[in-house]
Amino acid sequence: MTAAAPLRFITFEGGEGAGKSTQIRHLANSLRAIGAEVVTTREPGGTPGAEQIRALLVEGGAGRWQAETEGLLHFAARAEHLAAIIRPALAAGKWVLCDRFADSTIAYQGYGQGVALDWLWTLRRHVVGDTEPGLTLMLDLPVEAGLARAETEQRYERMGLAFHRRLADGFREIAAAAPERCWLIDAARDITAIATDIRAAVTARYGIAL
Amino acid sequence: MTAAAPLRFITFEGGEGAGKSTQIRHLANSLRAIGAEVVTTREPGGTPGAEQIRALLVEGGAGRWQAETEGLLHFAARAEHLAAIIRPALAAGKWVLCDRFADSTIAYQGYGQGVALDWLWTLRRHVVGDTEPGLTLMLDLPVEAGLARAETEQRYERMGLAFHRRLADGFREIAAAAPERCWLIDAARDITAIATDIRAAVTARYGIAL
Ligand SMILES: Nc1ncnc2c1ncn2[C@@H]1O[C@H](COP(=O)(O)OP(=O)(O)OP(=O)(O)O)[C@@H](O)[C@H]1O
Ligand SMILES: Nc1ncnc2c1ncn2[C@@H]1O[C@H](COP(=O)(O)OP(=O)(O)OP(=O)(O)O)[C@@H](O)[C@H]1O
Ligand SMILES: [Mg+2]
Ligand SMILES: [Mg+2]
Repeated sequence: MTAAAPLRFITFEGGEGAGKSTQIRHLANSLRAIGAEVVTTREPGGTPGAEQIRALLVEGGAGRWQAETEGLLHFAARAEHLAAIIRPALAAGKWVLCDRFADSTIAYQGYGQGVALDWLWTLRRHVVGDTEPGLTLMLDLPVEAGLARAETEQRYERMGLAFHRRLADGFREIAAAAPERCWLIDAARDITAIATDIRAAVTARYGIAL
Repeated sequence: MTAAAPLRFITFEGGEGAGKSTQIRHLANSLRAIGAEVVTTREPGGTPGAEQIRALLVEGGAGRWQAETEGLLHFAARAEHLAAIIRPALAAGKWVLCDRFADSTIAYQGYGQGVALDWLWTLRRHVVGDTEPGLTLMLDLPVEAGLARAETEQRYERMGLAFHRRLADGFREIAAAAPERCWLIDAARDITAIATDIRAAVTARYGIAL
């Protein structure tokens, strides 16, 4: 199979407090500095309807939803986000930088909450289709360090250390299985060093100098 | 294949205003009169979380969601409802009478809104699994008559006649493909005649005299 050119769709993944939101701002600035049009967005959310689904997911007790339900809600929000924001922006030649995407659902609902991985991949193939990210930056940080950094106290943060360890392992497994798309980044360093690595990953993957 | 005994799980399907809510009350009374324990419930909804998902689905403009999203939201609510209400009630030996269920998603999102039918059936197999209804009463009524009867003015009612015709045809196709489970009931008659037919269907399917 000859690889199609990777989409200008870059996702930031990793556990709580890994630095996703911080690094997305840095990369957006770097891309804008070379004149690129950049859309930054996040999941779950990114459209008014998807943000309403997000509110159902991030509020309330840890056991509020069946894990199966939670997986379906994440993909419902994602279907909306892809159709209304991500695909139109890519079609218009813009870069899309997204704070969490489908890997988070596989890590959180699959590795973390025990939903069957093959079912989540079936949902992913159906909902995401050809709009798989061209590059995924997996920010890897020891769980305790991430939870200490995280600023909010929302539902997923209350799920306990064992849960967060399973999902950190999950992200590593996903990255290992898709080495072209996924770059595992050591996020236990300072913000500038990580941003430099991320620019290097973008340069390597897309052949543009940042 | 020898058929397993049909679950005491009876669903009421059909377009807007077909008489589902009316007939579920009649059948619940008939079952209770012979000493059966009966849970009546509805979809989308039936649990606090699923009712929140319902609110997202029934409010707002007709084009508020992608059709794909809508299918996923219905199955998310259904996963919740099955786990929290339907399966526990059946396990406790109760009858469950449900106002709309998976056939409505196939009719509305599939036949009505154009989501791929095989994808909806894949979702159905995964989410519903072995908890398929033992009996489905398909209340069949000309579209105009149903819309004239319907009392509320919610999202699906605003979707236009052509939409409602497609889903009426969809219900008929679903019924034709599953003749053991589905009974097509002419709902253009008076309430008592329909209730009598429904009792006869229950008697035929479960071997109990009502
Ligand atoms: N490399 C870093 N070293 C130290 N602190 C950092 C680093 N990166 C980000 N931080 C700080 O850690 C906190 C969490 O960072 P950020 O919000 O970017 O993480 P996140 O992955 O988006 O978290 P969440 O999962 O909660 O959205 C912020 O206060 C941020 O300034
Ligand atoms: N067989 C019937 N003949 C005439 N009117 C009926 C009949 N069955 C129900 N109705 C009336 O039609 C209206 C709609 O009935 P009902 O609420 O039972 O339908 P429904 O299928 O649950 O509708 P919806 O899809 O809006 O929930 C009610 O006013 C009800 O009293
Ligand atoms: Mg963040
Ligand atoms: Mg009703």
